[in-house]
Amino acid sequence: MISVLRLGHRLGRDDRISTHCGLVSRALGASEIIYSGDKDDKLIEGLKSVTKRWGGPFKITYEKNWRKIIKKYKKKHFVIVHLTMYGLSVNKEIKKLRRKKNLLIIIGSEKVPGEVYQLADYNIAVTSQPHSEVAALAVFLHEYFCGKNKKFKKAKIRIMPQARGKKVVESSRK
Amino acid sequence: MISVLRLGHRLGRDDRISTHCGLVSRALGASEIIYSGDKDDKLIEGLKSVTKRWGGPFKITYEKNWRKIIKKYKKKHFVIVHLTMYGLSVNKEIKKLRRKKNLLIIIGSEKVPGEVYQLADYNIAVTSQPHSEVAALAVFLHEYFCGKNKKFKKAKIRIMPQARGKKVVESSRK
Repeated sequence: MISVLRLGHRLGRDDRISTHCGLVSRALGASEIIYSGDKDDKLIEGLKSVTKRWGGPFKITYEKNWRKIIKKYKKKHFVIVHLTMYGLSVNKEIKKLRRKKNLLIIIGSEKVPGEVYQLADYNIAVTSQPHSEVAALAVFLHEYFCGKNKKFKKAKIRIMPQARGKKVVESSRK
Repeated sequence: MISVLRLGHRLGRDDRISTHCGLVSRALGASEIIYSGDKDDKLIEGLKSVTKRWGGPFKITYEKNWRKIIKKYKKKHFVIVHLTMYGLSVNKEIKKLRRKKNLLIIIGSEKVPGEVYQLADYNIAVTSQPHSEVAALAVFLHEYFCGKNKKFKKAKIRIMPQARGKKVVESSRK
């Protein structure tokens, strides 16, 4: 089980990036995302609505106190992986991490407290260059699952891959 | 050579997502990004400044007429790859695409004109689920380059990967 913890969401400023973090978590195979920082009901509702239409299971929650989440998941024996450009290369560490069944992946926003680097079991970098928490999360999940796509359940909408154009199948099941 | 064409940038609304598209293009090995949509000097200058500090080569330009760009790159025998959730799976197509030396990767914003699906040689999906153009671009580039990190030249700042904490090396070369 892969859980994602998004640190320091800021209302307004982070709306779209935080939404992308949630969508990427779901699409690339994580089981849940937990938001910290500003409480943002619209963000949570938007992602719940995507999951309702496109399928799950995928859980979206908010918790003000991110330290509590890390503590709780450590107790449940999750391995804590912090994605940061200062960490060790994902290319070198991924084999080891694939053997761990339960991961809590932490992604930050602007400024991540130094404490997170210490609380994490692994600080992992997707390139040692500045880019995007959305991209780092996507590449990490893609690597962790060896590119295998998750099969979503109870989807009302599905895409049939096409060389050109769009083909969408809508299910009438409620 | 990999070039990225970002369609439909909107001032204000897309600032951060478009910035992430540029940073991801650079960090994950593309040679340039071309922005279309609203002209945004601040966006371009920000990315040029990152390249100046963190190294290159990486080119950032703006062109209002995206059709002109596609036409120009087709003439230069670039293969046109449009990233869209409606396309064929990257997992199935990547081997074929790795054999092509020059790619123009198109990433859209909110609404991509139907014409783009026709102009593209390949419409490629990173999962057939809704998520993020930043993530799709990152996974595509990561797969194309088989996870191999680009070596940047003339960098003033470099990160030394660490298990914990941050180690940054600054070069005094001008």
